[in-house]
Amino acid sequence: MISRPNNKSGGGRHRRAYETRRRDTHTSVPTARPSFSRFRGEDLKLKIAVIGGLEEVGRNCTLLEYDGDIILIDMGLQFPEEDMPGIDYIIPNMSYLKGKEKNIRGVIITHAHYDHIGGIPHLIPELGFPPIYGLPLTNAIIKKRQEDFKRPVNTVNINLNEKLRLGHFELEFFHLNHNIPDSMGVVIRTPEGVVIHTGDWKFDYQPAGEAPADLQRIAQIGSQGVLALLSDSTNASQPGHQMSESEIGVTIEEIIAKAPGRIIIGTFASLLSRIKQIIEISEKQGKIVALDGFSMKSNVEIAKELGYMKFSPKTLIDLKRIHDYPDNKVVIVCTGAQGEKNASLMRIANGEHRTIRLTKGDTVVFSSSVVPGNERTVQRLKDTLFRKDAEVIHSQMMDVHAGGHAKADDVKLMVRLLNPKYFIPIEGNHYLLHYNAKTVESLGFPKENIFIADNGQVMEFSHGKGVLTPNKIPSDYVFVDGLGVSDETNVVLRDRQLLAEDGMIVVIATVNAKTGQLVQNPDIISRGFVFLKENKELIEDLRHRVKKLVQDSDPLSWADTNNIKNKIRDYVGQFLFTKTEKRPMVLPVVIEV
Amino acid sequence: MISRPNNKSGGGRHRRAYETRRRDTHTSVPTARPSFSRFRGEDLKLKIAVIGGLEEVGRNCTLLEYDGDIILIDMGLQFPEEDMPGIDYIIPNMSYLKGKEKNIRGVIITHAHYDHIGGIPHLIPELGFPPIYGLPLTNAIIKKRQEDFKRPVNTVNINLNEKLRLGHFELEFFHLNHNIPDSMGVVIRTPEGVVIHTGDWKFDYQPAGEAPADLQRIAQIGSQGVLALLSDSTNASQPGHQMSESEIGVTIEEIIAKAPGRIIIGTFASLLSRIKQIIEISEKQGKIVALDGFSMKSNVEIAKELGYMKFSPKTLIDLKRIHDYPDNKVVIVCTGAQGEKNASLMRIANGEHRTIRLTKGDTVVFSSSVVPGNERTVQRLKDTLFRKDAEVIHSQMMDVHAGGHAKADDVKLMVRLLNPKYFIPIEGNHYLLHYNAKTVESLGFPKENIFIADNGQVMEFSHGKGVLTPNKIPSDYVFVDGLGVSDETNVVLRDRQLLAEDGMIVVIATVNAKTGQLVQNPDIISRGFVFLKENKELIEDLRHRVKKLVQDSDPLSWADTNNIKNKIRDYVGQFLFTKTEKRPMVLPVVIEV
Repeated sequence: MISRPNNKSGGGRHRRAYETRRRDTHTSVPTARPSFSRFRGEDLKLKIAVIGGLEEVGRNCTLLEYDGDIILIDMGLQFPEEDMPGIDYIIPNMSYLKGKEKNIRGVIITHAHYDHIGGIPHLIPELGFPPIYGLPLTNAIIKKRQEDFKRPVNTVNINLNEKLRLGHFELEFFHLNHNIPDSMGVVIRTPEGVVIHTGDWKFDYQPAGEAPADLQRIAQIGSQGVLALLSDSTNASQPGHQMSESEIGVTIEEIIAKAPGRIIIGTFASLLSRIKQIIEISEKQGKIVALDGFSMKSNVEIAKELGYMKFSPKTLIDLKRIHDYPDNKVVIVCTGAQGEKNASLMRIANGEHRTIRLTKGDTVVFSSSVVPGNERTVQRLKDTLFRKDAEVIHSQMMDVHAGGHAKADDVKLMVRLLNPKYFIPIEGNHYLLHYNAKTVESLGFPKENIFIADNGQVMEFSHGKGVLTPNKIPSDYVFVDGLGVSDETNVVLRDRQLLAEDGMIVVIATVNAKTGQLVQNPDIISRGFVFLKENKELIEDLRHRVKKLVQDSDPLSWADTNNIKNKIRDYVGQFLFTKTEKRPMVLPVVIEV
Repeated sequence: MISRPNNKSGGGRHRRAYETRRRDTHTSVPTARPSFSRFRGEDLKLKIAVIGGLEEVGRNCTLLEYDGDIILIDMGLQFPEEDMPGIDYIIPNMSYLKGKEKNIRGVIITHAHYDHIGGIPHLIPELGFPPIYGLPLTNAIIKKRQEDFKRPVNTVNINLNEKLRLGHFELEFFHLNHNIPDSMGVVIRTPEGVVIHTGDWKFDYQPAGEAPADLQRIAQIGSQGVLALLSDSTNASQPGHQMSESEIGVTIEEIIAKAPGRIIIGTFASLLSRIKQIIEISEKQGKIVALDGFSMKSNVEIAKELGYMKFSPKTLIDLKRIHDYPDNKVVIVCTGAQGEKNASLMRIANGEHRTIRLTKGDTVVFSSSVVPGNERTVQRLKDTLFRKDAEVIHSQMMDVHAGGHAKADDVKLMVRLLNPKYFIPIEGNHYLLHYNAKTVESLGFPKENIFIADNGQVMEFSHGKGVLTPNKIPSDYVFVDGLGVSDETNVVLRDRQLLAEDGMIVVIATVNAKTGQLVQNPDIISRGFVFLKENKELIEDLRHRVKKLVQDSDPLSWADTNNIKNKIRDYVGQFLFTKTEKRPMVLPVVIEV
């Protein structure tokens, strides 16, 4: 088993809560039991709905319901698409749970990445603060985040060797590899059979500083019969076996050893396995490490406190002290490898960093994948780094990044070990689910037993038989924007897109309320449409035409100004399109004085 | 040599113009001649400036100048970045040539892709219609595009076996491989030495239906001494040798043979080598081909007319007739593999296509690379296709796309064949130029003889010595947007970005011109900021506060309404940020009646 520290952080109230629940597990539960008729003769069924993560990478959340008991697995966030300007992120839709808060027995978190924990601060209060079950590192990171949000949370530390009863559900957990320690799969024993949820995972036979995935345990669970497997699709379309974290250690070790000056390694704040490895390699080579990035520092602090990282207190120094060491002894690990605007690496590149000025001899390593959509930004970041005379190494050149997700051969091994009756690809865009399904089909797995569902689509299991129903529970986008959470943002977003495309023009007609006659020339304000200095004639022409339009219109129709407003909108839109081939948003205003 | 049809399309005036010029080439020119002193004692120098294509993929344009003679190589367009909403594309900056139009001896076009020809319709009139020299297919595509733009152009067909004199410059051309026939490199014999410009290129030892790159000719040119080589950087960072077009032919042949129903292949309209290959393979298998996409059809028509494509008239049918054939006999080649909004594949996927409805059994092949920045859109397109029950095959799964650009081993071979004194990486983002340089350095090429320049940065050559000067000729973005060309668009763009981020709010205060007193409650209009229906209270509160602000302000300051406008802007901005953490654009309007 993976070595793990004492559950120091899980003590007190949380620990008791868990122990109380754990006692229930002595009542053994059969893996399936005959369903009984309910009032009005309805069969009891196990319902599974993946609320988020079937149509995107992010906002992962799976719901299981049986006879009034509900559990949730993961509660993540998704970063917005290009056509959602001004949105911070998107979280799972919890509408289905309105009025059912008391039925929620618990929320299981498979690991501490944002696409699995990011929705918690916003949603847990809404759900009446159900307990959150996670491994110690997961819970510690969740709690830290709640502190930042100044919101309470009830986390309960689980243990891989113990079972957990939540209503009709009996749960177990098994160790899997990913890019962060304490990643786990979930075994849910239900009255209708055993359901497995993998979270994000890969098989790493030789991970860096943690145990390999628990293959024996997985095989044992499989040998007892599995009804359904919900498994990560992110990399399932790629052939072969995912690279081991220890393989890239070899490359990173060589880069650190050979670098003529400082090494600056950009990665995700949450890629704790990578950060751990870099610190250990640096220490071995007698170099010191400084971290930069708020959440990265806080994550490392938590991991060190819980005993997941072990290094000499001399190895990790404060960033401000790097100038006390010769350049070739300094390794800096920082955030911003995706080109995020205000993250460390971007500030370093732009010369806006408080402590780090790039100089010749610096080597910058991109130790992360590029999230789809960030390609152009990362290209620009590399441009800037080269302009500052840095060496730049990225993962298309050599193995400085290992993915955290199962590739096709890993998926096949998992299916062979667990031998589920139903396979449910999760965690990926729709097309990635299809590729995951194809991988499993290639084993001879019956196609009709693979459910490619949409977000919120209900799957029902009873008498050992599963059905992908056409029914859906709500799963529409819920946006987090500034201080607010809203699912009514679509109108606003559409307007932002329109404004971004060709800008806008406000036409203000001030008229006499009694006569409908213009009191003065119409005012015209425009932004983002055309360069006004270059287009004075166009604007004057427009002003003249609007004046004429208003003067010529029938004052009788002025009972409602909407009529003349629509006239102005149509006329101005048409006129400007003819003149400029642009379609700015036209906002007519009529002021009656 | 590559087989080429008669220059039918280049007849008349164009042909004569070329022949006249060609006669000059009988005067043999030494590859270098001693420079002579000019008036005021200044040495004559060869100047090279790459106006576009050193900081991006696109808007390629290189300028060479010697003693009052100027030639340009390529005149491309670049597609806009994410932070340029509403911009159609970006073209090279021609400011340096203002007043020097009469010195322009000609524009050489290396091949007919948009990043090499796209700027022509907008820039050629500005430059006084200098002659454009290209191979027949290149010129035919340029002329077709000019017809679409209803603008004249003076194209002159060149011939790979003939020389061309343009003032002090003597030019030759040699065949290279790319994704479109008639791609060529340019040899420019100048009084200071021989300069080579590759255009976009790869070495394809076994191309599909055209000749391999003319290695013997290249070696021969190299053996005579080369001063400088300007070479394509697009794929130079990738190890190995670029894949041959014929290799992917094998995969495509298999896909077409095995497909249970229709095959829909998405690719670029300009990837004529690919389209040619698909038509030939389909014909061999007794299937018919229909094209969809305006420019794809027009490109194929031109290529067929010039004899670059040969197939039975029965093979290529009109799209409307596909229903006359059994599904497994139909191959459709279409545009839109990048997820472009209105292109064919997107309309097919969305069920908005006039003729093609996707059905089970259809196979969709993405036979193109994904242009950086389009990843998310292509993912969404694949999602949609899977939802319509189509099979989807893309180039990460099997070899259905071969790039058109030299990889590291190709670059090394080119350098060994030409053995230039100076190496100038072109055509790529800044970081790609660095990787191209690294590839060449790895051969032992002296680092100081590699010029990594910025757009517009002037390189000077005299007495066999080159200098990368700090001087720059203008190279700022020139935007094409709707009907207009402008380099003053930055203000407009910045406004569009601001509008997209948090929307805008217009606050209109109507006041008595004499007293400065509010005539009525302020009007407030907002778009893209918050959902107004949900925020009525906020708006009412704001209206009340603005009213108070205006009432409380000193009417004496009303001589200039800017004062009160600024007050309103600052106050409203601050108030809304406190309430919503958003910063909409605030547009105060004061109307005096």
